[in-house]
Amino acid sequence: MSQRFQVGICQIKVVDDKALNLASAGRMVEEAARKGCRLAVLPEMFNCPYSNHHFPHYAENIPAGQTAAMLADLAAQHRIYLVGGSIPERDQQGRIFNTSLVFDPSGMLIAKHRKLHLFDIDIPDRIVFKESNTLSPGNKVTTFPTDFGLMGLGICYDLRFPELTRLMTMQGATTIIYPAAFNTVTGPDHWQLLLRSRALDNQVYVIGAGPAYNGEATYHAYGHSMAADPWGRVIAETGSEEALLSFEIDLDVITRIREELPLLKHRRPELYK
Amino acid sequence: MSQRFQVGICQIKVVDDKALNLASAGRMVEEAARKGCRLAVLPEMFNCPYSNHHFPHYAENIPAGQTAAMLADLAAQHRIYLVGGSIPERDQQGRIFNTSLVFDPSGMLIAKHRKLHLFDIDIPDRIVFKESNTLSPGNKVTTFPTDFGLMGLGICYDLRFPELTRLMTMQGATTIIYPAAFNTVTGPDHWQLLLRSRALDNQVYVIGAGPAYNGEATYHAYGHSMAADPWGRVIAETGSEEALLSFEIDLDVITRIREELPLLKHRRPELYK
Repeated sequence: MSQRFQVGICQIKVVDDKALNLASAGRMVEEAARKGCRLAVLPEMFNCPYSNHHFPHYAENIPAGQTAAMLADLAAQHRIYLVGGSIPERDQQGRIFNTSLVFDPSGMLIAKHRKLHLFDIDIPDRIVFKESNTLSPGNKVTTFPTDFGLMGLGICYDLRFPELTRLMTMQGATTIIYPAAFNTVTGPDHWQLLLRSRALDNQVYVIGAGPAYNGEATYHAYGHSMAADPWGRVIAETGSEEALLSFEIDLDVITRIREELPLLKHRRPELYK
Repeated sequence: MSQRFQVGICQIKVVDDKALNLASAGRMVEEAARKGCRLAVLPEMFNCPYSNHHFPHYAENIPAGQTAAMLADLAAQHRIYLVGGSIPERDQQGRIFNTSLVFDPSGMLIAKHRKLHLFDIDIPDRIVFKESNTLSPGNKVTTFPTDFGLMGLGICYDLRFPELTRLMTMQGATTIIYPAAFNTVTGPDHWQLLLRSRALDNQVYVIGAGPAYNGEATYHAYGHSMAADPWGRVIAETGSEEALLSFEIDLDVITRIREELPLLKHRRPELYK
């Protein structure tokens, strides 16, 4: 298993045009591959404006839909692991989910995560959003094996629940990926704090991928894609604009830090009832 | 139940002289009461240098020992809730614990917490410490009712385990207190991050009380006592020197934030197995 690998977060700007969004994703994944990345990560709802109005119109079946097919092709063409942010997925019963797809470098679908915790927030005069008006929640925790160790996957609001990150860590995940779309209200206060603390508590790498800020959208994404290392340090961060953020992960750092400060061994699960 | 109350963290400098340490604690608790605080919090091992060499020499029985008696008197004299940091406790079998005592304004002992997670760290050339060389761990999670709501109590390294803070929150604690003695290696990187993230994830107030820096000690305490509010903001913080840090807690903030962003309702415990 390789201990070091390059990652690229594709912080694209999402607009109200699926074809343009897929083209932006395609271009940036290609750039990531060209720069040596072995894993590329897209943001939450990368093919669709983040709004309850748009989710049903943009929703696709999986794996039959256009976006799943395009992601598979992209991964295979560039021989790269691809975490396809998320898209609105319509299932056989017509329910819609916020779903992330992961492809390996052969283009095979190796993981599918449906957002577990739906984002319902109501801060008067600042931000109101109720995903549960249109979306259904998933029911499964998602980890998947790669050439770079086991990885875990959550979507945006899933990040707010420390139990989930811990569970993926206990299953053996060493890199945990959150495609997300934090906004300009909660983002500045919470985004970095959450990513750093999940990384620190679990002594894993945590990757947060957001879309770029789009002033014309109804929902103002915060951007600021970033990654935190197992000591809780930010190792890479970008601003609000469209950008490819590339950085290296070194899994040996996890081994060393867990020897120096054996947090996971020091847990007392018998008391946590 | 009162929704607002003033808290004082007594960041005293701990020296190798128990009488001097008790006198420092007494003076600063008195100052806190004079300034209107209804709760005073002392740091971890406030009566004893933080070292395995000293713990057995300073250890006392509880409640028969000198320090427990002095804390009870202090609380009653100043009509204040007093979280007595922690002290080395010797039990009937001769085992030593890192133990925190809480007294109500009548001087009654209302809670006793033995540190659950022992601090064993080994970062070559920077810091090595093994509490487990001299101390035994506790086996009980500690919350206690007050006139200002239910409170939770952990000691220092206990803060590193998100499960414990979550458990106290689920039991109804709205203010969670960590007497601690983070050091100058891990303190700058982790102390604030941990306190803020526990507060944010659980939408509670979190209080961290450390001793002042003492250049003559073998263990270099970081100081920086602070408090974080349920939005994860630092509401009060001091430096490394001896200081009384006083601030207000407003439990209505918890109610409002939990309505705006209902994290605890959005948990999916059935998935966290």
